[in-house]
Amino acid sequence: MTAYVRGRLIALEGLDGSGKTTQARLLADSLGAVLTFEPGATELGRSLRHLLLDPGRPAPVPRAEVLLMAADRAQHVDEVLLPALQSGRWVVTDRFSGSTLAYQGWGRGLATDPLRQVVGWAAAGLEPDLTVLVDVPLEVSRHRLELAARDRLEGLDADFHERVRHGFVAMARAGGPHWVVVDGTLPVETLAVEIEALVRTRLGWPAPPAP
Amino acid sequence: MTAYVRGRLIALEGLDGSGKTTQARLLADSLGAVLTFEPGATELGRSLRHLLLDPGRPAPVPRAEVLLMAADRAQHVDEVLLPALQSGRWVVTDRFSGSTLAYQGWGRGLATDPLRQVVGWAAAGLEPDLTVLVDVPLEVSRHRLELAARDRLEGLDADFHERVRHGFVAMARAGGPHWVVVDGTLPVETLAVEIEALVRTRLGWPAPPAP
Repeated sequence: MTAYVRGRLIALEGLDGSGKTTQARLLADSLGAVLTFEPGATELGRSLRHLLLDPGRPAPVPRAEVLLMAADRAQHVDEVLLPALQSGRWVVTDRFSGSTLAYQGWGRGLATDPLRQVVGWAAAGLEPDLTVLVDVPLEVSRHRLELAARDRLEGLDADFHERVRHGFVAMARAGGPHWVVVDGTLPVETLAVEIEALVRTRLGWPAPPAP
Repeated sequence: MTAYVRGRLIALEGLDGSGKTTQARLLADSLGAVLTFEPGATELGRSLRHLLLDPGRPAPVPRAEVLLMAADRAQHVDEVLLPALQSGRWVVTDRFSGSTLAYQGWGRGLATDPLRQVVGWAAAGLEPDLTVLVDVPLEVSRHRLELAARDRLEGLDADFHERVRHGFVAMARAGGPHWVVVDGTLPVETLAVEIEALVRTRLGWPAPPAP
């Protein structure tokens, strides 16, 4: 992370149906942090989310899928994340670079090293201070999604999502102090308390706003 | 270029108003080549072209602009260029990677080395066998565009387009046998004959289709 950033960036990652979106919201509430998400948090991003995830559109080839996700992230970083961080705010984002590496790297099978270069360039080198992987067995995420409409990535087969989960876990193991794994099968409030405690241990707590 | 490619890829590059689009068409006609263009030759690309060039939309940040152009290229390479080249066809494309390096590198001021990595990855390593830079002084291109509606990139200031032209010329000088520069102020038919002769000298000529 660049030296001028004063806030902290926390990313929640995991499969759809892991509960990470709920946990991101609860964490942002308790931190008084900016809550945001990928893809689709900017005006450009909303158009790209449609291109990427609408099952009625022809699928982009895997490299194009990466580049569209990366374009969404570049806009998100410059328009939302860096301004908030530079003003001292803490930011919680529902998905960040880890998702591209897990879904398009492990899931789609693109080689990881060049993918990391592209993803890092898109994010202008910005990395989360902490990434919280909300891990659930595939059956749990599938069960939770069963009644929900699926977008294009959600509709891929179980093998794909197993590879994605494996990718997240592999990154968390390699990620040292910047990654933690939590159990997404815990009750929502129990898990929220655990995540809050982990964040406090690793990153401390945002300063209260000036009076 | 990967070893299995049998056709030849020829890119025409230059400022808008240089005449490259006309020359691309004439060259493709005389070669019996596939004629294509960037951005916007695929269904995904048409949506991206709208996001990129419509002056009514908010401008993507420069890295996002690169990544959208690169996404268009990744789709174009996999869907159009590689299938044609692999079947032995010659292909003439109106713009390719050189445009991203010139407009977003020299023009927008993004550092060239990481940009080349992103652009190369998007193209799956595919490079033109020959790039023809149709060079015109800025005043000529501006004059030709005067009565035409301008898209977002065309509407940028003269300094921007001078940097782009300088970038094209710098790449052509460094590009050895894979780049040639032609004079875009020549009459259309004269220039077409010159380009055809240059292509024949550098690349030979496509085999006639099997009877």
